[in-house]
Amino acid sequence: MGHRAAIVGAGHTRFGVLTDGPRPLLRAAVGNALASVDHGVDPHALDEAFLATLGFGGWQIGNASAILAEEAGRPGLPTTRVENACASGGSALRAAVRAVAAGAAELVLVAGVEKMTDVSNARRRYWLGVSGDTEWERLAGLTFAGVYGLLASAYLKVHRLGPEALAEVAVKNHANGAQNPNAHFQKQIRSEDVVRAPRVADPLGLYDCCPVSDGAAAVLVAREDVARRYTDTPVYVEGLGASSDFLAVQERPRLTGFDATRAAADAAFREAGCDRSAVSFLEVHDCFTIAELLAIEDLGFAGPGEAAALTLSGATRPTGRLPVNPDGGLKAKGHPIGATGISQVYEVFLQLRGQAGARQLPEVDRALTHNVGGAGATATVSIFRAG
Amino acid sequence: MGHRAAIVGAGHTRFGVLTDGPRPLLRAAVGNALASVDHGVDPHALDEAFLATLGFGGWQIGNASAILAEEAGRPGLPTTRVENACASGGSALRAAVRAVAAGAAELVLVAGVEKMTDVSNARRRYWLGVSGDTEWERLAGLTFAGVYGLLASAYLKVHRLGPEALAEVAVKNHANGAQNPNAHFQKQIRSEDVVRAPRVADPLGLYDCCPVSDGAAAVLVAREDVARRYTDTPVYVEGLGASSDFLAVQERPRLTGFDATRAAADAAFREAGCDRSAVSFLEVHDCFTIAELLAIEDLGFAGPGEAAALTLSGATRPTGRLPVNPDGGLKAKGHPIGATGISQVYEVFLQLRGQAGARQLPEVDRALTHNVGGAGATATVSIFRAG
Repeated sequence: MGHRAAIVGAGHTRFGVLTDGPRPLLRAAVGNALASVDHGVDPHALDEAFLATLGFGGWQIGNASAILAEEAGRPGLPTTRVENACASGGSALRAAVRAVAAGAAELVLVAGVEKMTDVSNARRRYWLGVSGDTEWERLAGLTFAGVYGLLASAYLKVHRLGPEALAEVAVKNHANGAQNPNAHFQKQIRSEDVVRAPRVADPLGLYDCCPVSDGAAAVLVAREDVARRYTDTPVYVEGLGASSDFLAVQERPRLTGFDATRAAADAAFREAGCDRSAVSFLEVHDCFTIAELLAIEDLGFAGPGEAAALTLSGATRPTGRLPVNPDGGLKAKGHPIGATGISQVYEVFLQLRGQAGARQLPEVDRALTHNVGGAGATATVSIFRAG
Repeated sequence: MGHRAAIVGAGHTRFGVLTDGPRPLLRAAVGNALASVDHGVDPHALDEAFLATLGFGGWQIGNASAILAEEAGRPGLPTTRVENACASGGSALRAAVRAVAAGAAELVLVAGVEKMTDVSNARRRYWLGVSGDTEWERLAGLTFAGVYGLLASAYLKVHRLGPEALAEVAVKNHANGAQNPNAHFQKQIRSEDVVRAPRVADPLGLYDCCPVSDGAAAVLVAREDVARRYTDTPVYVEGLGASSDFLAVQERPRLTGFDATRAAADAAFREAGCDRSAVSFLEVHDCFTIAELLAIEDLGFAGPGEAAALTLSGATRPTGRLPVNPDGGLKAKGHPIGATGISQVYEVFLQLRGQAGARQLPEVDRALTHNVGGAGATATVSIFRAG
């Protein structure tokens, strides 16, 4: 491997139903990231930029990476849009780290944005839906909630479990979101609320599903040897992994996990050269409650079917031995598609620098982010260490 | 910089109005690229893949990079979609070379595909149109042909020129396309045909505009030190450059060229460490005839306004001292958006290995490719050398 990379700044907008369009959202997150740099940074120090976005139809902005350069105050900056559906953020981070590792850039801006709420329901359903297989699944009625409902049914059946752990994921993540001023939902819920909520795709109900959110997030990636120009406490990128799978769920050998997550995690740990036990907390892709359980297992932090008991034991709460989604996760913080993978890195940046405020975890020095595209057809895993 | 990269294989489908959808197009181009490797290659040797595509609405395929891994016979391969409008191909090549330079990959597949002809005119106009500025320009009626018509008017006026050089670009590129069995148009045209053709956006007529094409292209990028495992005649990537500009043309200081092309070219030559005079031929982004003239100047091969006389002198013909678009260019070969930047590399691969058949240029050892997104809001330039 070439040069190593570190995160030296991070910015975030509120996630939720926002009045701002994609340009002001990007401008705010990027401005926030630049302002977060301890020793200051001039936007002219940027060598490159990557934009993660699905870019919903309502936007009417193509060639969108150009607006990232504009909103960073740097028209002319080399800039590239990276899109791997809901894993766009993790994929863009990877592209940025590669540019640094290649010795082609010293400081790279990575931003994610999505403006989802000003699109009609029908158009949004199309835009999200095509990230799964259309030929055999979507046009037969299999929505994303439907896919994850299938996965949840299979998981509960294969492992002979009730739905309690699913509800606990929702309750925990809402409790975490209530401590996060940027979260879409900042309201605690009870297990009964989850169980009694209207059904969406059995066994998943309304509180098992992440919301439709607007928002943006941005991070600054620096080459390791110049990182201390920007801050005394950079957060190092230790390992990156990515993988893919068949777009159609029916082509895969199993419904109780994502092979793409497994392969991405193995690659990331190989590159990081550390064990699972060295990781203090996880930011996983909980687009539905079942996805958090599958992620914990696929990432190698619990055996098949064991994430349910682990979750019910309280181990994944902020006070547990392996906190998961301390920022509220996609479930409560919200899921503005392209921004999600970058938002996870934002949380890691705050936590590993002790700047997470009311939700600060004690004694954390290594974290993992996990970002999934569609129903697991693409996935990225990244591992970070405090400076 | 880290490791250097080389092209060791390249594949191409016919460009034109094709019956195949994006999956079979990708499969054909990738299969063709793998089969082109002189010493053979197993798809399991691939470490990573990048897909360049605008991904037209008619597709209904999101998370599309996953289908590249599938069609390469490698579900599970780390794969990423890169989209910078019409510069997607050049941007994807850059991402692949960065992955190699970073030491993260030894062999990377880069493919571009577009299926444009099964989309309604209205939908295609939207999909292409949003790669320009929508807020101030597109919704006021400024189509892409309109933008390039404005640029052509400004160019002819500022430099006090008639439209003869525009026609010569079309005549030359159609003549070149007639030698390319993959070209959309393989028919020679005369200068009178260009001048008498129906007007599209004055001074541009029908023959000044590239067609709407389907097609795919793919190349294999290897780390320099393993390239000879695959072939005795790799084509080395010497330098890459990229830049951006305001999305809206009206925000730019001039209409007679693209600053993004200039900056990308300067960066590519800096990285390559060679002069313009070392380049044997150019593959430039001639989406409209005027674009070829602007490219020749912005890339630094002619002064302002001088590309017209250079073109009329015959210097850019295959028999001239600086052949431009020997494959027919976007104008005659066709312009399946995501495939275009990769198709340029395909041509360079053939030419620098002496495998271009009827259109083979004599004594070529270094070539440049130039790919533009939208109306110049993104641009990439790449420089290659024969092995």
